[in-house]
Amino acid sequence: MPVKHAQSPLAPKMTPTLPRVAGVKLAAARSGVRYKDRDDVMLVVVPAGATVAGVLTRSKTSSAPVDWCRKNLARGKVRAIIANAGNANAFTGKAGDKAVEESTRAIAQALGCPRNEVFMASTGVIGQPLDWEKIAAVVPSLIKSAREDGWSAAAAAIMTTDTFPMIAPDMATMLAFVFTDAKVPSGVLQKLVADAADKSLNCVTVDGDTSTSDTLLVVATGAARHAPIEEADDPVLVDFKRALDEVLIDLAQLLARDGEGATKFVTINVGGASSNGAARKIGLSVANSPLVKTAIAGEDANWGRIVMAVGKSGERADRDKLRISIGGVRITDGGQVVPNYDETPVVKHIKGTDIVIDIDLGIGRGRATVWTCDLTHGYIDINGSYRT
Amino acid sequence: MPVKHAQSPLAPKMTPTLPRVAGVKLAAARSGVRYKDRDDVMLVVVPAGATVAGVLTRSKTSSAPVDWCRKNLARGKVRAIIANAGNANAFTGKAGDKAVEESTRAIAQALGCPRNEVFMASTGVIGQPLDWEKIAAVVPSLIKSAREDGWSAAAAAIMTTDTFPMIAPDMATMLAFVFTDAKVPSGVLQKLVADAADKSLNCVTVDGDTSTSDTLLVVATGAARHAPIEEADDPVLVDFKRALDEVLIDLAQLLARDGEGATKFVTINVGGASSNGAARKIGLSVANSPLVKTAIAGEDANWGRIVMAVGKSGERADRDKLRISIGGVRITDGGQVVPNYDETPVVKHIKGTDIVIDIDLGIGRGRATVWTCDLTHGYIDINGSYRT
Repeated sequence: MPVKHAQSPLAPKMTPTLPRVAGVKLAAARSGVRYKDRDDVMLVVVPAGATVAGVLTRSKTSSAPVDWCRKNLARGKVRAIIANAGNANAFTGKAGDKAVEESTRAIAQALGCPRNEVFMASTGVIGQPLDWEKIAAVVPSLIKSAREDGWSAAAAAIMTTDTFPMIAPDMATMLAFVFTDAKVPSGVLQKLVADAADKSLNCVTVDGDTSTSDTLLVVATGAARHAPIEEADDPVLVDFKRALDEVLIDLAQLLARDGEGATKFVTINVGGASSNGAARKIGLSVANSPLVKTAIAGEDANWGRIVMAVGKSGERADRDKLRISIGGVRITDGGQVVPNYDETPVVKHIKGTDIVIDIDLGIGRGRATVWTCDLTHGYIDINGSYRT
Repeated sequence: MPVKHAQSPLAPKMTPTLPRVAGVKLAAARSGVRYKDRDDVMLVVVPAGATVAGVLTRSKTSSAPVDWCRKNLARGKVRAIIANAGNANAFTGKAGDKAVEESTRAIAQALGCPRNEVFMASTGVIGQPLDWEKIAAVVPSLIKSAREDGWSAAAAAIMTTDTFPMIAPDMATMLAFVFTDAKVPSGVLQKLVADAADKSLNCVTVDGDTSTSDTLLVVATGAARHAPIEEADDPVLVDFKRALDEVLIDLAQLLARDGEGATKFVTINVGGASSNGAARKIGLSVANSPLVKTAIAGEDANWGRIVMAVGKSGERADRDKLRISIGGVRITDGGQVVPNYDETPVVKHIKGTDIVIDIDLGIGRGRATVWTCDLTHGYIDINGSYRT
């Protein structure tokens, strides 16, 4: 049973109360799959006709629920999402596929919908058979108790090593579910979601590991009245895109803020790279460097490790054009430290909880922003003892 | 000034006494570049006519000494190697290039050899100007005191966060110098060294970071009498290749054994991959996974994280063919845990200090062995406080 960890010092001061989305109903229950004393399953039921799009882990050993979602996303229709915590149903062979089949069947039968409109997401331990009968057993009560204001109970039910609830967080794994009443064809929605994820959830990292189970699903109920949308570049979508970006960037930042053992939230802005992709790769190389992350944890303004991490990214860089700033203070220029560099304001900045690193490659127009956290003793405490 | 750390529990019981290589003379001195109370510079002088080959960091922000070595390796001739600890002379701009120029000039003048036969390697803090005058100042006494039995003093002079001396270790950075009396043309030597490094130093990782300064130089004095060698596949080289492999694999393993904070030495054997390169990439993905490494530190036989790390490598894998063993005990088969899996012997194995993980992809003939260590509180202690 995992140890209960203290809330991250970077947690938001308050969890917002989420507004209802007409017809989107949520419920939580305790199935006893792994935890005994808490809710560990959540169900979302959405109105018939809703569309769905998503982004799933790129892992080559993805979980059975991820494989199931991937298959059904092509069709783009959804009536329900079930998610459970404590068991990822990953690397569970044919038994894992069957667990998805039976869990989704129980819901499809109760709702009277095709089974491929029931999506599933699981997080927790890898490689242990998921006792689907325990999940199927709570389906009737989940459906019965689903309510439009069930957000916070549902979010709490799928926490594992998180220290505060979000709309679907989980650390080593991220499960994120977003709902809107917009009316968007699933093909258009898929394009919007993929673009938004590239600027948000694909730009956050805690330890560089890739879960077998990462799942983002965006559901559009279609209840809102607005001009019909046929293409992703329709001007009527401008506000929708901005809102989607905002919510996913918010989630991405919250993931870093709840990184295991995090004491500092780190924003890495990369500019002047040879392409946006190169900028993101350089940002992630810095964000995933254990030497950079431990230096930040130790409040050591060791910018040389940022130089090292830029260099190891494999992306094009020119030592003599590379500019690095921490907390807005320019540290390097012309391939070396700036003359009369005064570390005092940088040390002050790095003693805070929100650290900003700016990296300008000076060789192109590629840009990206990446978020992460520091690497502390807390990370080792939490991850050295998760399973046993 | 870095804190002095306790010796790694994985350190070898004794440091072997290295035999002389005729004409290879070593010396150490304290230059005061960074440390005040210890030797921090070493010099190796080799006989005229020696050939040299090497492998250098792939970092795009490589240090000035690395750039210098890269330029001169093409020529393949060497008379001396100078190395210093405490300052990496990386990201030091034109001043860094000048520091290499002046340091190597002082030696070339004293030895009466071309400057491009003097190689240089530096390890330590990035981004601080290297005071070459302090190095040049100790050159006369280094040359005067160089002796054929100077190995251990020279090795000790280039330690930084290491906790025991090797033939040239250093952690975040690795400096390795190997000497032989064989007579091998530099072109042939380069081929042999590159092949051997791919099976050894390129298969070891502590934290996945890539130093700006990694340097392996292999020097052949040519004093030995043997049949002339003209090609890398000459049968007369069989024993030499085996010996070179052995010494570099030994060094690679010692690097992992002296990883910052290491309490367990981990060997990862990957087989059945689509290619040798894929096998190495999968091995390194597992070896660099913070979740795998913290589980091992916590003595948690959480093999699901190995599945995760295989999946995130990006290399081809088939869930249903993947076989994972720990300590020789098969854990998975057919895409799930083996029937009646008994964790007892695996738990016993993981409580030891030498951990062996076998991964069989079951899809090809690619093989690789990778070495690493666990990720502990010690890593964070050491790397959070290195510079300040």
